[in-house]
Amino acid sequence: MSLARPNPRFLARTHRIFASQTRSYAAPGDGTIPAAKKKYIPTAGTYPLGFKAGSAHVGVKASNTRFDDLALIASDSPCAGAAVFTTNKFQAAPVTVSRNLLKSRKGEGIRSVIINSGCANAVTGKGGIEDATLMGRETDQAFIKDNNGEDDGQSRSIVMSTGVIGQRLPIQKIVSKIPTAYYNLGDTHEHWLGTAKAICTTDTFPKLVSKTFTLPSSQEEYHIAGMTKGAGMIHPNMATLLGVICTDAPVSASPLQTALTSAITKSFNSISIDGDTSTNDTVAILANGAAGGKQIDSTESADFAAFQATLTDFAIDLAKLVVRDGEGATKFVTIRVTNAKTYKDAHRVASTIARSPLVKTALYGKDANWGRILCATGYAENVEGVIPEETSVSFVPADGSEELKLLVRGEPEQVDEERAAKILEAEDLEIKVKLSEGKYSEEAVFWTCDFSHEYVTINGDYRT
Amino acid sequence: MSLARPNPRFLARTHRIFASQTRSYAAPGDGTIPAAKKKYIPTAGTYPLGFKAGSAHVGVKASNTRFDDLALIASDSPCAGAAVFTTNKFQAAPVTVSRNLLKSRKGEGIRSVIINSGCANAVTGKGGIEDATLMGRETDQAFIKDNNGEDDGQSRSIVMSTGVIGQRLPIQKIVSKIPTAYYNLGDTHEHWLGTAKAICTTDTFPKLVSKTFTLPSSQEEYHIAGMTKGAGMIHPNMATLLGVICTDAPVSASPLQTALTSAITKSFNSISIDGDTSTNDTVAILANGAAGGKQIDSTESADFAAFQATLTDFAIDLAKLVVRDGEGATKFVTIRVTNAKTYKDAHRVASTIARSPLVKTALYGKDANWGRILCATGYAENVEGVIPEETSVSFVPADGSEELKLLVRGEPEQVDEERAAKILEAEDLEIKVKLSEGKYSEEAVFWTCDFSHEYVTINGDYRT
Repeated sequence: MSLARPNPRFLARTHRIFASQTRSYAAPGDGTIPAAKKKYIPTAGTYPLGFKAGSAHVGVKASNTRFDDLALIASDSPCAGAAVFTTNKFQAAPVTVSRNLLKSRKGEGIRSVIINSGCANAVTGKGGIEDATLMGRETDQAFIKDNNGEDDGQSRSIVMSTGVIGQRLPIQKIVSKIPTAYYNLGDTHEHWLGTAKAICTTDTFPKLVSKTFTLPSSQEEYHIAGMTKGAGMIHPNMATLLGVICTDAPVSASPLQTALTSAITKSFNSISIDGDTSTNDTVAILANGAAGGKQIDSTESADFAAFQATLTDFAIDLAKLVVRDGEGATKFVTIRVTNAKTYKDAHRVASTIARSPLVKTALYGKDANWGRILCATGYAENVEGVIPEETSVSFVPADGSEELKLLVRGEPEQVDEERAAKILEAEDLEIKVKLSEGKYSEEAVFWTCDFSHEYVTINGDYRT
Repeated sequence: MSLARPNPRFLARTHRIFASQTRSYAAPGDGTIPAAKKKYIPTAGTYPLGFKAGSAHVGVKASNTRFDDLALIASDSPCAGAAVFTTNKFQAAPVTVSRNLLKSRKGEGIRSVIINSGCANAVTGKGGIEDATLMGRETDQAFIKDNNGEDDGQSRSIVMSTGVIGQRLPIQKIVSKIPTAYYNLGDTHEHWLGTAKAICTTDTFPKLVSKTFTLPSSQEEYHIAGMTKGAGMIHPNMATLLGVICTDAPVSASPLQTALTSAITKSFNSISIDGDTSTNDTVAILANGAAGGKQIDSTESADFAAFQATLTDFAIDLAKLVVRDGEGATKFVTIRVTNAKTYKDAHRVASTIARSPLVKTALYGKDANWGRILCATGYAENVEGVIPEETSVSFVPADGSEELKLLVRGEPEQVDEERAAKILEAEDLEIKVKLSEGKYSEEAVFWTCDFSHEYVTINGDYRT
């Protein structure tokens, strides 16, 4: 074997990383939130009218004896719902059940979203479908018993699960705690935050965003609030991407689905931790119209356009939180691909750069490695309109200072390495890739993080 | 920050890994070959008649003051040549020049392959094209001066470069050493091995294979020999995939190109270290017919079929050596996808599994994580004929013992964790994914390695 000495700088860095590792594999929200992440947790919020959130402790994972792992988000009245699901061919039971629910109800008359963490109910066969169906129906019963609901025999609850795959849900334990979650429903900031915590798995912090907005046709103030949880990895480290968004704006099911699908392309489908698409990924939206105003029932209105823009921005804010919490991440990187022939081309190039292990390890190493960025640009599949001799690559610093040009019209720049090093010290960085000199004008943005020793440690560790 | 303690097992492992790191970033073949890799270096070989190999020291990288970095592989007489090039849109100058050469000569009348390591001559504009052209022409001159060549004004030398991108070649230094490489040509095992060493960059060992074979129509013994170098990463860690194969079988240019293209699909295009496709990747083949026999001038003969099979197996052996030397790799993993609707589908699924960071980190962690394998199977793009309820996943142990079933027809097995752990202790492992129960029958094989802390260290380290 070699006599080469370990690099002391790396050993020191690795020690620091291992010492700061705070992922919990056993239960959501074990309470220890890394100091650097605390700024992403809101201390107050403005929540949509007519919605409540609550949670309960089930112990889906037997080792979780303390933390809430069942979450309920409910509308006071039946409302419109829409969702976007994973494209993975191995779809988990709750994905199948929720998709069928929205289809059969045409997205109308929805009451709630019920979510458990700790077990994904994926690759569980017919029994898994029965469990997911029962979980939804038992949630409906809570509303019916409370005289708020009508039972037409069809479920009104969207079901989501996240956690270990290949294991059945402890469905009786879950069902027995649905009334507790229902009882715990409330509309305060603490209710929303507690619920956001209950859907976490390996997340190091709960992800909750709330905002107000207006629509052209009315004077009303509308609210939108949502929560999400970590992306990218599944069993045993229990993850999947889930999101729930609620608004009191009056949007019918069909335009709601259109708006969500479009918003997801530019948000949750424009982020990457490790490029792995889980079996359970689901983002749902509920709109109950509780704030009043004119119903948006088509995609052909100024109100719809305004709502679409609001929802897209909101979904981007939520999705970015997932990247902020990427496993082992030390960097938050925006990849902006401009002057592409089509949005799809720009998106494909941005996605390929965001997934390149060589780009991601270079970012971790704080290396201004435009060669790897260019290389990934060049091997993005099914992309037209990349013009090598017109391609430029820059770093856009987080502090608002002038961009640092690395490659201009296919020619390498003399890089000011000192400035490059300074730019790469910051947590945030934008990489700008220009594919042509004005011939085309489409642009796409992607958000990603770096690849660190900690990523390998988290995902290479033995099952626990 | 957290008070979590580092996991001592991981720290110990990381120390070991760092202590064993033997990659050289400065020059090819720095002499220290890891003990575990020595078994992959042949101590003798059977080389094709009428071919010679040689190398010279240029010092393409100024820091390389000792090691040969210019390689020449030559046929005694003009011969047929074919090549497969990178699909990256940013193609290096030698790729453009060699592609044009083969096109204009229709693959006939080729004399040699000239290769430098240390600088990729990529993203170097018009000047780079001039340099690559000059490198080929100066190689031709060596043959002409030695009275072995005719000068028809068209180059007869395929040019390859590997190393740092975005820098011009020190072309005068290279040109001045071409006569030395020519002078050093020889046909012994030592000549071939020394030449294989000269094309290395971050490789930890030279990759050389030689074999004999026969063809149905003759009694001749034919020879095939080839060399290759590391894959996957570019500047600053200086890599790209290059390969040169020589045979004394009589194959004309057109069937030679057909055979090579097909062989590459099942070999060099069926391996993955990190999924990054470089700007310089090139595999070339020369066939000079020096061993005699009937000329293979079409793809419609038993001789062609036999040659195709031999070349495919040979290219697979070469390509596997690249995976054996994957950066930071601790495992050599064969991914076999069976019972697919088409070969392309099987290949896409195998490729997606081979590239999944979650699968690769689980392999590093010796985790029998069928969930991640299944997940990657499910998100492979543009694949038909995946039947979830008929999909099975097994580990096939390297020791020839019975396979370990992890998932059978969509249902998780009770896994014997002790046996799984034992299987995962071995360096070699086969993952078998069956996509249907006999409805389809196509199969593809892919070779990959794991993702380790060392991979991040190698690729995340500062430029040196």
